[in-house]
Amino acid sequence: MNYFSSEFKLGILGGGQLGKMLLYETRKFDIHTKVMDPSNEAPSRIACNEFFQGDLMDYDAVYALGKKVDLLTIEIENVNLDALEKLEEEGLKVYPPTSALRIIQNKAKQKLFYVDNNIPTADFQRFAYKSEIEDSIANGGITFPFIWKATQFGYDGQGVKVVRKLEDLNGLPTGECIAEKMVDFKNELAVIVARSASGEVKTYPVVEMEFHPEANQVEYVLCPARIDEKVAAKAREVALDLSHKIKHVGLLAVEMFQTQDDKILVNEVAPRPHNSGHYSIEASYTNQFEQHIRAILDLPLGNTDSKVAGIMVNLVGAEGHTGNVVYKNMEKIMGMDGVTPHIYGKKQTRPFRKMGHVTIVNNDIAEARKIAEQVKNSIKVISE
Amino acid sequence: MNYFSSEFKLGILGGGQLGKMLLYETRKFDIHTKVMDPSNEAPSRIACNEFFQGDLMDYDAVYALGKKVDLLTIEIENVNLDALEKLEEEGLKVYPPTSALRIIQNKAKQKLFYVDNNIPTADFQRFAYKSEIEDSIANGGITFPFIWKATQFGYDGQGVKVVRKLEDLNGLPTGECIAEKMVDFKNELAVIVARSASGEVKTYPVVEMEFHPEANQVEYVLCPARIDEKVAAKAREVALDLSHKIKHVGLLAVEMFQTQDDKILVNEVAPRPHNSGHYSIEASYTNQFEQHIRAILDLPLGNTDSKVAGIMVNLVGAEGHTGNVVYKNMEKIMGMDGVTPHIYGKKQTRPFRKMGHVTIVNNDIAEARKIAEQVKNSIKVISE
Repeated sequence: MNYFSSEFKLGILGGGQLGKMLLYETRKFDIHTKVMDPSNEAPSRIACNEFFQGDLMDYDAVYALGKKVDLLTIEIENVNLDALEKLEEEGLKVYPPTSALRIIQNKAKQKLFYVDNNIPTADFQRFAYKSEIEDSIANGGITFPFIWKATQFGYDGQGVKVVRKLEDLNGLPTGECIAEKMVDFKNELAVIVARSASGEVKTYPVVEMEFHPEANQVEYVLCPARIDEKVAAKAREVALDLSHKIKHVGLLAVEMFQTQDDKILVNEVAPRPHNSGHYSIEASYTNQFEQHIRAILDLPLGNTDSKVAGIMVNLVGAEGHTGNVVYKNMEKIMGMDGVTPHIYGKKQTRPFRKMGHVTIVNNDIAEARKIAEQVKNSIKVISE
Repeated sequence: MNYFSSEFKLGILGGGQLGKMLLYETRKFDIHTKVMDPSNEAPSRIACNEFFQGDLMDYDAVYALGKKVDLLTIEIENVNLDALEKLEEEGLKVYPPTSALRIIQNKAKQKLFYVDNNIPTADFQRFAYKSEIEDSIANGGITFPFIWKATQFGYDGQGVKVVRKLEDLNGLPTGECIAEKMVDFKNELAVIVARSASGEVKTYPVVEMEFHPEANQVEYVLCPARIDEKVAAKAREVALDLSHKIKHVGLLAVEMFQTQDDKILVNEVAPRPHNSGHYSIEASYTNQFEQHIRAILDLPLGNTDSKVAGIMVNLVGAEGHTGNVVYKNMEKIMGMDGVTPHIYGKKQTRPFRKMGHVTIVNNDIAEARKIAEQVKNSIKVISE
């Protein structure tokens, strides 16, 4: 199949901001795309060749899209896997493959996979129902504090909660979950691995997620991470090992903890372009979206090195603002050196909704970090 | 007017490859676009918000688009200027302004403007009809060789011919033209100047057009140009001076000759993103398309420096091939370091048609130049 011809049709499940940025690359290579998303106002709608409104968890909808394309990829992992499996059986290329998605879609399976495959990760227990956690606490099986995680459909911090006392469990979903030991970490890191259909593999540099000291929210993603080279090498090694074992095709974003004694523990993974790789659009030789396309089309992978240091700041909806979005002080931040805003095109803001991101590039990461803080303090995502 | 809101509508006249690349940036900033192009298969069609099929030289079509938008820009200078002038009179922001387009659209006016404004340029004569050139030759008014240029509607080398003997004039259009003295140049250079609506100005580094020794076709555009710093400074100065005098808004690509005695002569200009600036997508802090958007929206201009050296190779249709396009050896060039192909999405190839370009970036321009040559020797744009 010649990908650079009008015969080839690429299907993409999900049309959010990741899909939107993926479409810059399909446009660059003139690859014909068919996108499905539940929302008729999905950010991907404009730049794809054909748009289909459909429920990504619906067997028939996913199967029908699959029958219209030559290769199917995802921008979100919550999709109907039975339909993907059927499509694979019928000979369709589905990247990442269903086998990898089955492991990743359920956090209990993901954790068990780490344990079975000697991937370092924080201790945890799996529970079929939340009520079983309460029993376990009563019996001394788990001690506070711990992290509760729903095994399915968590996204952007939803489905995760720090539990310090019994009452913290109130109001959480009652279904399958895990209780994970809290890690006393020095840094939260991430490594993106690209793996092509024929098995070529490359890792991006380690990035560092810098948290707000009080709000417990990622404020900045920095590339390169300001860590010891040995720790960085170890993080890339762990990510690469996981990539080989999980046999994904496309990108795998591996989020990790660097513990106080410099161990690396895998937190969780995403088999697609990822927020922690957005810096790559401006900073890397090959951005993560182009790399994902190269990997799934089995083209040679591009150089993952950085041209310059890059820092990403998420643009999230301000607290107390719900409604038609306004970006305040956009002109001001665009006057700062090396600043590029990305607006995802969601019309409505609400507190903490991801509305865009801003990249700051500079030869000197310390200088970029200063500018990033000015960006963070200036820009406001509010409602009219 | 808040540009980062759904109220604002940007009109773009022309939907070719320049428009297509401009739309990556309007998508990035979530700016609503209305594009008009004569072809229903224009490369811009997909990623704009609204597409209108229309003749860009037609008064009514251009005027009608203008009435639907808050600001109008162009990706091609051959548009109906009377309509633009009327729209400006009625209060629409048209960038570049009609006054600049009037000078640029007609090559005789452009040359006269240089003379009137002390912008160095090659000597020339203007003729209302081609037959007048023949009279002038007969009377010794012009001597061979010289360059014949149609004053209007030339594009991509059409409308330009080296005339070495009388017969070379055969078959050329009979209308208004200029005869320009041939310049014995060391290098052909270009400088892109960005000028915002409120007059902020920045120049990009000087690029060098490297010609094929026999075919007299630009083979490579290199940034930075491999020239003396003093010459580069002079080239930027001339471009800046012209920018101030012509009072464009948006980008102005200034093509220049470096003569054997290191004088700078302006060849011609384009008031928009330009082939000589395509390298900037991968190599510059702010690519030319984003910069054009910043300039026309009167946002602060971005950094025009390069992160790395960049070389661009045009992908033009191979001789002897007309029909459905195939890009041969695409996988091969994508395996070379720092190589990014851009496919414009034209379905039909024909000899010398611009079908795409390839950018090669590297810290070392000499290394990039070697890879560029491998790219040039590998990739073939042919028909099925």
